[in-house]
Amino acid sequence: MKTLLIVSHPNILESGSQQFFLTAVKENENVTIHHLEDIYPDGKIDVAKEQQLLCEHDRIIFQFPFYWYSSPPLLKHWQDVVLEEGFAYGKRGRKLVGKEFGLVIMIGVHEREYQAGGSELFTINELTKPFQAIAHKTGMKYLRPFTVFQFFYWTEDKKLDMVMKYQQMLTMENNLSLETRENWIIEQLERASKTTKDEDAATVFQFTISTIKENRLTLDELKIVLDQMYGNN
Amino acid sequence: MKTLLIVSHPNILESGSQQFFLTAVKENENVTIHHLEDIYPDGKIDVAKEQQLLCEHDRIIFQFPFYWYSSPPLLKHWQDVVLEEGFAYGKRGRKLVGKEFGLVIMIGVHEREYQAGGSELFTINELTKPFQAIAHKTGMKYLRPFTVFQFFYWTEDKKLDMVMKYQQMLTMENNLSLETRENWIIEQLERASKTTKDEDAATVFQFTISTIKENRLTLDELKIVLDQMYGNN
Repeated sequence: MKTLLIVSHPNILESGSQQFFLTAVKENENVTIHHLEDIYPDGKIDVAKEQQLLCEHDRIIFQFPFYWYSSPPLLKHWQDVVLEEGFAYGKRGRKLVGKEFGLVIMIGVHEREYQAGGSELFTINELTKPFQAIAHKTGMKYLRPFTVFQFFYWTEDKKLDMVMKYQQMLTMENNLSLETRENWIIEQLERASKTTKDEDAATVFQFTISTIKENRLTLDELKIVLDQMYGNN
Repeated sequence: MKTLLIVSHPNILESGSQQFFLTAVKENENVTIHHLEDIYPDGKIDVAKEQQLLCEHDRIIFQFPFYWYSSPPLLKHWQDVVLEEGFAYGKRGRKLVGKEFGLVIMIGVHEREYQAGGSELFTINELTKPFQAIAHKTGMKYLRPFTVFQFFYWTEDKKLDMVMKYQQMLTMENNLSLETRENWIIEQLERASKTTKDEDAATVFQFTISTIKENRLTLDELKIVLDQMYGNN
């Protein structure tokens, strides 16, 4: 599965959260990082090239700061010119049908404020309706959003936990079965064991992989026994 | 009451609906038409000037085409830089508190598609939550939006009806009492009778004004009698 990570931020170098998360995936060959302000400093978008890029990927992610509850100007411009009739919707062509679409949004306010009674009044689910409507109109499957609330207060532990979840948002199949998650972890460990220069670490990675696979065999056997006991319903 | 009409459209000369509605208010001294793409062709917004303009008006209207369920890029940029902390929200200053805020949005799809089961899935009320949240955060009163669905199919009668409602959205007090509506109509007629070059028309306007005022006197008398009959509860 190939993921197109469309990043938009008016001033990305000043954003700690953007730098942190992008570093975590920049070596991943299944993720294409596509930072709009960097590629189009003059704001003139190459529509054909962008549409080609969309066609070459299975999962499309918009990553941006949630200023005034919406996308930055350049990403909005990108939406308006790239997602045109005949390409993204309409009778003449719907090239995005069946792809997955998700948001990674960075938010400076505490999560609890996003509800009735809070300073922001509405939930993230309510405020992102325009993006859910884009997914619907273009025939894409809308993923649960990945929300980064108040990154600047995060502990190192929280960062580690969130970077793993971020990588899953970008690259894990959208199917939360135990098998999917195990396969994803095995994939990450295999990549890590190939690229690391630390031989001890590589051994640990390989050992972890075989442990996961062995456990799975045991679980599979257990499942067969259970199925037989309960008449394989 | 002074209204600031902030218009944003990437290609306004090609928009029949924009031209139609702007023509209807361009002579009105209580409405400041402020077309962002025209004023800032290079996208560099004069923040201090914009904030001053906001302070000088009582009602703020965003008028724009509802492409991908949100504001055009330049209006979004305006939101991000003008509605800054210390001016629009936060402890250091909330200069917009008590003002009114509304949307005039032009939409190319039929109204019935804006619901579950329709091609757009969500209602306008759901899709405009980000703007409602802006009103809440800045302490402005959110007005019912003025929605223009499929202008290109409108009959002349429908256009006349809608242009009247548009003028009300921009300039009528947000209080739907009979008195408010009568006062608003009298104001419009007085302005028209002063500016028209047709003397017969001016006479008709003046006659209409006196008829409305006479009816109101009769209604007021009736009300006094009723109040006395029912003990002035």
